[in-house]
Amino acid sequence: MKTVDEVWQLLRRQVSAREAEEVELSHASGAVLREDVRATEDQPAFDRSAVDGFVVLANDACEEFAVVGNIRAGDGGNYELVRGQALRIATGALVPVGGEVVMLEDSTESGGRVLLNKRGRNHVRRRGEDAKAGEVVVAAGTAIREGTVGLLASLGCVRPKVTRALDLLHVATGNELTGAEEKPSAGQVRDSNSPLVAAWARSRALRIRQKRVGEDADALSLAIEGHRDLLLISGGASVGSHDCTEKVLAAAGFEILVTNVAVRPGKPLIVARRGDEWAFGLPGNPLSHFVCLNVFVDAALSSMRSGQAAPALLKGRALSDIAGNPRETWWPAVEHSEGLRPLRWTSSGDLTSLAVADTLVRVPSSGLAAGAETEFIRTT
Amino acid sequence: MKTVDEVWQLLRRQVSAREAEEVELSHASGAVLREDVRATEDQPAFDRSAVDGFVVLANDACEEFAVVGNIRAGDGGNYELVRGQALRIATGALVPVGGEVVMLEDSTESGGRVLLNKRGRNHVRRRGEDAKAGEVVVAAGTAIREGTVGLLASLGCVRPKVTRALDLLHVATGNELTGAEEKPSAGQVRDSNSPLVAAWARSRALRIRQKRVGEDADALSLAIEGHRDLLLISGGASVGSHDCTEKVLAAAGFEILVTNVAVRPGKPLIVARRGDEWAFGLPGNPLSHFVCLNVFVDAALSSMRSGQAAPALLKGRALSDIAGNPRETWWPAVEHSEGLRPLRWTSSGDLTSLAVADTLVRVPSSGLAAGAETEFIRTT
Repeated sequence: MKTVDEVWQLLRRQVSAREAEEVELSHASGAVLREDVRATEDQPAFDRSAVDGFVVLANDACEEFAVVGNIRAGDGGNYELVRGQALRIATGALVPVGGEVVMLEDSTESGGRVLLNKRGRNHVRRRGEDAKAGEVVVAAGTAIREGTVGLLASLGCVRPKVTRALDLLHVATGNELTGAEEKPSAGQVRDSNSPLVAAWARSRALRIRQKRVGEDADALSLAIEGHRDLLLISGGASVGSHDCTEKVLAAAGFEILVTNVAVRPGKPLIVARRGDEWAFGLPGNPLSHFVCLNVFVDAALSSMRSGQAAPALLKGRALSDIAGNPRETWWPAVEHSEGLRPLRWTSSGDLTSLAVADTLVRVPSSGLAAGAETEFIRTT
Repeated sequence: MKTVDEVWQLLRRQVSAREAEEVELSHASGAVLREDVRATEDQPAFDRSAVDGFVVLANDACEEFAVVGNIRAGDGGNYELVRGQALRIATGALVPVGGEVVMLEDSTESGGRVLLNKRGRNHVRRRGEDAKAGEVVVAAGTAIREGTVGLLASLGCVRPKVTRALDLLHVATGNELTGAEEKPSAGQVRDSNSPLVAAWARSRALRIRQKRVGEDADALSLAIEGHRDLLLISGGASVGSHDCTEKVLAAAGFEILVTNVAVRPGKPLIVARRGDEWAFGLPGNPLSHFVCLNVFVDAALSSMRSGQAAPALLKGRALSDIAGNPRETWWPAVEHSEGLRPLRWTSSGDLTSLAVADTLVRVPSSGLAAGAETEFIRTT
């Protein structure tokens, strides 16, 4: 039985980043950038006015100027500044060579003339002050966010090279499962893991196929044929179902690396690999399944994208006591500005906490006292 | 000039929730549930074994039993328990009436007989122990997350009623703008706000249309014709451009509610409404634009979805000093487990911090000392 940290370490060491491909910029949010993106020009590319105001020659000691024209943003004209003359200038407009920009608020205009009351503080954003041409502005390995999209656009990088979309096959197994849209008969339960995995894969932009089979080794063997980045098998919760998944994966040439993890819920987790293909046998119990997706499968995904499997562990304080257990626990909770509020969670089968849980709190064997600091992850 | 809190209050009071519609469950993540979802059956719907083991009559005092069969998960058979006899039972399987489940680990099986070493701790999840039929399990107003999708599936709610998809029209204005894919001429800059808004809208599942027009009131008037939930106009950064947006909105029948906000960056923000349609005139400066999207437009969106505009303010500690300013500042930062690390940010035009910023830290006029607690929001 491996610990949580051992499983993370194994994934960090063994799961490697997939190839890169170019994508359309507005679809790149969430992907990992795989090349350094440099400024192709200085940023800003020219001296820009930082305010609306007037521009005059910096070394012109006059106080009053004749207003002779306007420079608007986008105006590429080659204005020459002349002693005794001022041009109106808009924020973002190109500042002529030798110019000093004075804010509108520091001026008094009247009858074609302007009095500049405050000189010397030149309101110009200088060419190259944010980045020089050739400088790396967004480094390879950056997880692209919406703000990054804006920045890449400003650099003219409209087809960034990112880790390619990953393929996922998900197979739900179990004789007790009906579709979520069906009415279960006696002894049956609805398959809630398939919609969960579909939503999880959707927000991670995975290419997903899903199947459902009974607890039958032959059917499962058939269902998992083919190659993809990631294979998830949601098992039944029973030992027999766990053993079946393990045997089928081994027979298909997977090396079984983990068969149980010292974690609650989620102990009967299988991790296996076949070359660069990774398989997870997830416990069918919905809460265990949810925890394993967020704690382990996301770590593998992160490695496939960036080569770094470290889960995004944050630190926070529990708002009430949480009991310990021989195995470390990942407890469903809600993050408030004051701390982490653990949700009612009566048994590993109780998934009502998933209505609102947005975090999983790491609870050591010894338990957590209210106010104690601990690690947590955010779930999506 | 309004304060940030005043703008939030205005949005909270005036922006109302849109109609609801049914959506496919696996696409519901991120939407707001608009009806209470109740358990249609008890949860669990029947007494389920919590372990793999044996089931015997609870009041059968024998220590050794004849093993007479198996109950598998999904098995709906009506097993009758008989004194002196045990049935193997799998996790999740239906427990026959009067049964007591003993864990496999507490049993010794041999030659068709089983010795049960530990009695009295009945490993059964009782019918209705998580929720009773008719009980509200997911309340109206819940923001659906991936875990919620799993829970709704388990309840058979495969087409939840959520706030309908919202329509957005985005118009970027400014004579200085070129497409991000173009090479800017002298005085021009790439339009980075349109790809930013596209990515932002995508992650919020908005139906978006985008246009770009020059700084021309007639062109802008034409561009904004029609009705939608949300109209965003990314202005130039100049006073003229700000005035143009304000005039065009007023001429189109919008009531102008805000024309400036005491915030840095982002001061020249326009908020306007026309019936249930809301318009934001966003400053063209990319960082100001980013801040306004995350601090104000997201609050309006939240109201349209749930009737609650409160932004998700969290509390954290700054890892280094941040200087104050007469206007409150929202400073780009990165969230670490130790706290919030402010990024280098030299001027409101400098957007290089957007490479990695994942939070905006609220800095009061007096500034923030390293270690001081403050509010922040997470950006996407």
